[in-house]
Amino acid sequence: MMKRYRYGDLSAEEINRLCRRPKMDFATVFEAVEPIIDEVRRRGDSAVATYTEKYDGFLPDPLVIDPATFNIELARKRREAIDRAFENIHRFHKAQLDSTLEVETMAGVRCMRVTRAIDRVGLYVPGGNAILPSTLMMLGIPAMLAGVEQLVVATPPGPDGAVAPEILYIAQKLNIRSLVKAGGAQAVAAMAWGTETVPKVDKIVGPGNQYVTAAKMWLQNSEAMISIDMPAGPSEVLVIADHTANPAFVASDLLSQAEHGSDSQVVLVATTDADLDAIDRQLSHQLEDLPRKEMAEGALENSFAVIVDSIEEAFDFSNSYAPEHLVIPCEDADRWVQQIKHAGSVFLGPWSPESAGDYASGTNHTLPTYGYARIYSGVSTDTFTKQITLQQLDQTGIKALGPVIAELADIEQLEGHRRSVTLRLEKLNNQ
Amino acid sequence: MMKRYRYGDLSAEEINRLCRRPKMDFATVFEAVEPIIDEVRRRGDSAVATYTEKYDGFLPDPLVIDPATFNIELARKRREAIDRAFENIHRFHKAQLDSTLEVETMAGVRCMRVTRAIDRVGLYVPGGNAILPSTLMMLGIPAMLAGVEQLVVATPPGPDGAVAPEILYIAQKLNIRSLVKAGGAQAVAAMAWGTETVPKVDKIVGPGNQYVTAAKMWLQNSEAMISIDMPAGPSEVLVIADHTANPAFVASDLLSQAEHGSDSQVVLVATTDADLDAIDRQLSHQLEDLPRKEMAEGALENSFAVIVDSIEEAFDFSNSYAPEHLVIPCEDADRWVQQIKHAGSVFLGPWSPESAGDYASGTNHTLPTYGYARIYSGVSTDTFTKQITLQQLDQTGIKALGPVIAELADIEQLEGHRRSVTLRLEKLNNQ
Repeated sequence: MMKRYRYGDLSAEEINRLCRRPKMDFATVFEAVEPIIDEVRRRGDSAVATYTEKYDGFLPDPLVIDPATFNIELARKRREAIDRAFENIHRFHKAQLDSTLEVETMAGVRCMRVTRAIDRVGLYVPGGNAILPSTLMMLGIPAMLAGVEQLVVATPPGPDGAVAPEILYIAQKLNIRSLVKAGGAQAVAAMAWGTETVPKVDKIVGPGNQYVTAAKMWLQNSEAMISIDMPAGPSEVLVIADHTANPAFVASDLLSQAEHGSDSQVVLVATTDADLDAIDRQLSHQLEDLPRKEMAEGALENSFAVIVDSIEEAFDFSNSYAPEHLVIPCEDADRWVQQIKHAGSVFLGPWSPESAGDYASGTNHTLPTYGYARIYSGVSTDTFTKQITLQQLDQTGIKALGPVIAELADIEQLEGHRRSVTLRLEKLNNQ
Repeated sequence: MMKRYRYGDLSAEEINRLCRRPKMDFATVFEAVEPIIDEVRRRGDSAVATYTEKYDGFLPDPLVIDPATFNIELARKRREAIDRAFENIHRFHKAQLDSTLEVETMAGVRCMRVTRAIDRVGLYVPGGNAILPSTLMMLGIPAMLAGVEQLVVATPPGPDGAVAPEILYIAQKLNIRSLVKAGGAQAVAAMAWGTETVPKVDKIVGPGNQYVTAAKMWLQNSEAMISIDMPAGPSEVLVIADHTANPAFVASDLLSQAEHGSDSQVVLVATTDADLDAIDRQLSHQLEDLPRKEMAEGALENSFAVIVDSIEEAFDFSNSYAPEHLVIPCEDADRWVQQIKHAGSVFLGPWSPESAGDYASGTNHTLPTYGYARIYSGVSTDTFTKQITLQQLDQTGIKALGPVIAELADIEQLEGHRRSVTLRLEKLNNQ
């Protein structure tokens, strides 16, 4: 069912081609979002409303709601599942918080680093037909832990214009007071510029379709002076299977990625002793009654399997591909962690399906796609903070380091820099 | 000499105006760099050569040199000053390296985070008329510590086309094998796309003029798939002075910023009991024979002093301004660290001039400007790494967490996600 390639037969150019994602035509998408961004800047709420009516078919009224004012009723099982996932995500992200760094680089020269929260952050949670409470947890929990003062959520409500109770429940747990009932480039622009009712933020994070991503990218280079988490493309998985991998598990991991949409990237890397035919049979079998069968089939058409002679070759290819999700449902998976250079999140061993990290193990599911795992990290508490360095020299410090600074300022011909030191040294000598 | 404002008299709008930097006209600069970036992509080395001849007045031949092949002779005092600064920067940045994180979020669910270097990074070191060996240390040392495999430096050589021995000496210490003798948007583009002789990189870092910055920003949104450290504007300092601040020190710190160029931002925040007149007299006095007097005077014309009634007000304004450099040459400076929310790097107490951090204390001098200190950190080892999360569930873990994952997948109507778990639970129940 999946196209098969033998790694040893592939040229560097062919490996390159297999690692390349479908071309994102950003020029065209930037052109589409620019007028939206511009109009939201000029006309504020009414522009957001106009575009939401045009693209999503309803008029958000009011545009911004306060989740705290809603009475939520959730089935107990549902609430408990959310609470458990919340707790795990909270635990793993809490451990990420930086402590203050302090180093005496030489006698009398103390260097420090402290971490401070970004003041205001916008969380984009995709919605519309699906409800994605997990994404709100993945963005909101690290933001809350980091100490962000003001969190704004933007999410397109359902076709009836209502926000799902699961979303409101999590927003209440996160103490979020502004939820924008809109999505797309218009919602991103509203948070970047601020409008009559949408608070302006300093950073915008979260996954979204190509218009959302393009709006974030465009705005990070604009006078809105915002930053973003990362560029995002369609979701992707690479599964490494050897003879210990259960074919049914492998197929289910491939399908749980494929069902995201026909543009999902699904790659299997199998050693020669893995049972590829059994995996193919499991794929056909499990596809049969999958509700999102059509989407999954579309994704599988673009998918492929690479057959490798060794685990080393498997990681060579995986590191070249730099997958968002790397699933290794093999017995010895944790032995190979050192070989992983580029990936978003990794799932080790037979009992760690990708969906564990999507929802509840504790790791974040907002991850770099499209090969950006080579350079970007997934969302963490670091996404919501920045660091400030500090230094304090005492008299011993400036006496020892002053001549070094003066010499270096001299090389760079910055006399004012030199004098700010020599003036102090003179003062000390005259004491 | 400096314009004076009383903080208590200022409206929110006036404070806003004082915190605003001179408008960067990115639309115009993007238009200027786009054709350069495009031509370097298409024509490679020859385009870099053409633009370098056009803008910098020389033809780099060869365009890329290997610093290891040069014999360097440096005066001993100069070499020792570089070595001392190198050592301090190395010490402070080495302490920044992340260790592996591991948390058992619940019984049988192990979540980890590991740090991996970015493969290839381009370091932009401004040059031309000035030599900036300090910038090469500030970029190269954390990159080396992070374990970046391939470092490429781009720096415009002097008017004679030669690279300064100080730069080559540091490049040798960093084991850098590719130095591109060019600057501007063309050098940035060459590293982003790769050319016949310039290696393609994954990330480009370092300060530069508006064309360099615009090229970096443009390219981070392009098919080159690179990331950058941060957008950069002209350098800036905010000095907080109370009655304990030595007016000569304060003036020297203001001037060592002002001499960078007439577009430098220089701000003084003084308590009512600080001796503002003495600071003004010192400014005039120290300006007299400053070699870069004209540039410094230009910067001082746009500078201003804000008079505050309390240290709390001082930090209110400083946090609104979010300065690149925050200098607090007051006796009690280290008591106020908690009040600092937004700044790039901070200089505490009378013996910590800004130039200490520019060169040799150990902190990094590549810092966010233009108000971006609100959202970006300065360069650190983190600039050259990204993080990968991992999870491993054992049978206990999937048994406990499986039903939670299944419930959450059900909310989001992702049946394939649910089945990748239930399949495993069934397998366990049948064992």
